Amino acid sequence: MIKTDILIIGAGPTGLFTVFEAGLLKLKCHLIDALPQPGGQCAEIYPKKPIYDIPAFPEVLAGDLVNNLMKQIEPFQPGFTLGERAETIEKLEDGSFIVTTDRGTKHHAPVIAIAGGLGSFEPRKPPITNISDYEDNGVEYIIRDPEMYRGKNVIISGGGDSALDWSIFLTDIAESVTLIHRRNEFRGALDSVEKVQELKNLGKIEMITPAEVIGLVGRNHLEEVVIKQGAEVFNRECDHFIPLFGLAPKLGPIADWGLEIEKNAIKVDNTLDYQTNIPGIYAIGDVNTYPGKLKLILCGFHEATLMCQSAFQRIFPEKRYVMKYTTVGGVEGFDGSKKEAPKAVVKSID
Amino acid sequence: MIKTDILIIGAGPTGLFTVFEAGLLKLKCHLIDALPQPGGQCAEIYPKKPIYDIPAFPEVLAGDLVNNLMKQIEPFQPGFTLGERAETIEKLEDGSFIVTTDRGTKHHAPVIAIAGGLGSFEPRKPPITNISDYEDNGVEYIIRDPEMYRGKNVIISGGGDSALDWSIFLTDIAESVTLIHRRNEFRGALDSVEKVQELKNLGKIEMITPAEVIGLVGRNHLEEVVIKQGAEVFNRECDHFIPLFGLAPKLGPIADWGLEIEKNAIKVDNTLDYQTNIPGIYAIGDVNTYPGKLKLILCGFHEATLMCQSAFQRIFPEKRYVMKYTTVGGVEGFDGSKKEAPKAVVKSID
Ligand SMILES: Cc1cc2nc3c(=O)[nH]c(=O)nc-3n(C[C@H](O)[C@H](O)[C@H](O)COP(=O)(O)OP(=O)(O)OC[C@H]3O[C@@H](n4cnc5c(N)ncnc54)[C@H](O)[C@@H]3O)c2cc1C
Ligand SMILES: Cc1cc2nc3c(=O)[nH]c(=O)nc-3n(C[C@H](O)[C@H](O)[C@H](O)COP(=O)(O)OP(=O)(O)OC[C@H]3O[C@@H](n4cnc5c(N)ncnc54)[C@H](O)[C@@H]3O)c2cc1C
Repeated sequence: MIKTDILIIGAGPTGLFTVFEAGLLKLKCHLIDALPQPGGQCAEIYPKKPIYDIPAFPEVLAGDLVNNLMKQIEPFQPGFTLGERAETIEKLEDGSFIVTTDRGTKHHAPVIAIAGGLGSFEPRKPPITNISDYEDNGVEYIIRDPEMYRGKNVIISGGGDSALDWSIFLTDIAESVTLIHRRNEFRGALDSVEKVQELKNLGKIEMITPAEVIGLVGRNHLEEVVIKQGAEVFNRECDHFIPLFGLAPKLGPIADWGLEIEKNAIKVDNTLDYQTNIPGIYAIGDVNTYPGKLKLILCGFHEATLMCQSAFQRIFPEKRYVMKYTTVGGVEGFDGSKKEAPKAVVKSID
Repeated sequence: MIKTDILIIGAGPTGLFTVFEAGLLKLKCHLIDALPQPGGQCAEIYPKKPIYDIPAFPEVLAGDLVNNLMKQIEPFQPGFTLGERAETIEKLEDGSFIVTTDRGTKHHAPVIAIAGGLGSFEPRKPPITNISDYEDNGVEYIIRDPEMYRGKNVIISGGGDSALDWSIFLTDIAESVTLIHRRNEFRGALDSVEKVQELKNLGKIEMITPAEVIGLVGRNHLEEVVIKQGAEVFNRECDHFIPLFGLAPKLGPIADWGLEIEKNAIKVDNTLDYQTNIPGIYAIGDVNTYPGKLKLILCGFHEATLMCQSAFQRIFPEKRYVMKYTTVGGVEGFDGSKKEAPKAVVKSID
């Protein structure tokens, strides 16, 4: 059982910044995310695109925003349960909660912060009837650990940035990389498309287009895919088939936790602390809704900050917290680190 | 008469970021600030100190935060009335407002955003009976334009960073710089104290300590100051006397505008848009109060963003605004500039 002060569901920008604000209050955080990496939409959908409305960043790549947040929260040593979806919640008699993931990992905390964005990202799957038989058995929709493909024969399918970028990346690791797409045209960053072209010319990526994988064959593990190219249908041996057709967020299991839902989002009390109808469960960032709500990153930051104050009061009802500016009080990490403004000296001049 | 869409009172971080969010909605802004430079507390009180809780900045100097904000809002060409205090407000029949400063500058706008922080910064004045006779006539509490001191004999008084830093700065401009302080010890950044010591040793700054200026002499313009050092009292000729005893914010004239005030701050409706009890006047950042209010920079950013949406509806009641992510829609400046994420290409690989 993982124990923490604030259990954060969703490691997008809002969830990540919560760790920082909680840390200033000496509260520890643990994050659960269905994706294999932190960063939410920024990391999954548009890591290489610039954002222009993060305050004091005239321009910042979404991926860099996530990296900066990871660096900022480092002193507060957050725990991560990645690649798992928060599935069920149970309220104990003492008012604390146990959240269990789809892989059975259990987390216990007095406060839950749902920072689930548009929901947990679920892969769009190709319509192959027996595909679920091979999931995690030769078929993966998300690349969690590229090392898994070392020395293997890999078939990737898809026509966007993920398919292009992973094809490029895996040429250095896999025995062979084959990219299958139902069109000849790919849609992605110019340099990605050009790099794939180059690797194809060098014989490092095999392309089969326009074509589709329509069947899977294998005893216990995937052994072959069935490919349809025009009128032709043929089999191709492989160890892994990775369809990268994008991830779509689904509010998912959280919708059944007894929370008030409106417009596919969780209603919260924006007059005070972004708490839901269940005391002890807060919802912040894109996942919540209230009058005038804007689904913007900077709003999630503010909501996280106010929420942490309320969580502190809930966890320590007897303590009175007096806010100190970070500039004045510094930042004391749980790792023993201390950041501090240089102090003024008092010195005579003679 | 200066005309604009949103008249912002206070050019601190909150006021500055308002320009950006308004600009995204194609609303023009003009800012008034009592200080000669933008940046509010960050620029005036602690420009060289690090802040640790600005989201995605593990550390940023307050002065750099202001510079970044200035750069971010540049495409939206804000107007500035600096060094003047907003004094009176008048509501016209059409619901718009005229705000007049202490120097008589008039501003007309349909929406007022008060981002006045802890109030307009007013200098702490030394207790010299006839000092007001010489204000702007040889006595200045704030250095607006250092060029004014070129070739002049300047006496600075004070024992903190401003007194130290301006003494250093003016040695290159003024004919002579004398620093008077009632103690031998100065309180400031180590390198400032050391630099003053060095300039004193070189004969570029004259120090008179422990001493105090107790009188001012001159016909139409300041000609001499009266200095008390221990039991001794003597006169010293000079063109300018600059007492730098710090600036203290005072809510000031805004307190008399008919706004609901609580704990020296303006009450706002935090359930929706941070509007005050007077429709069309909003209050954002440190200057406002509501249940759970935190006087933090990141909260001002959020409040400014929600406020701009409401201001847009007020100015264009018939238009329906559909929010576009900056990453998707880009940023179109009023100066004709356009920032935009590189578009994905659709390209065949063969
Ligand atoms: C193309 C694009 C451009 C954008 N441009 C901008 C912009 O310019 N400015 C701006 O402010 N915003 C922009 N946004 C929106 C911005 O990305 C979101 O506001 C932001 O990501 C919300 O952060 P969040 O942390 O609340 O949620 P998300 O980033 O959505 O993160 C939520 C995380 O929670 C996880 N999760 C949800 N449910 C579960 C569960 N049950 N178990 C485990 N994990 C779960 C998800 O997997 C996800 O990783 C843009 C969005 C897109 C798609
Ligand atoms: C030493 C110190 C350390 C701090 N550290 C942090 C930190 O680590 N993190 C953090 O989030 N915050 C910190 N703060 C607080 C932070 O600086 C404020 O929250 C922030 O400056 C508020 O911004 P603002 O734009 O709302 O107001 P301000 O920065 O106060 O700006 C308001 C401006 O309005 C002007 N004004 C007011 N009334 C009038 C008028 N009638 N006419 C003309 N002009 C007027 C003032 O002159 C001023 O320039 C710190 C503050 C101090 C003093």
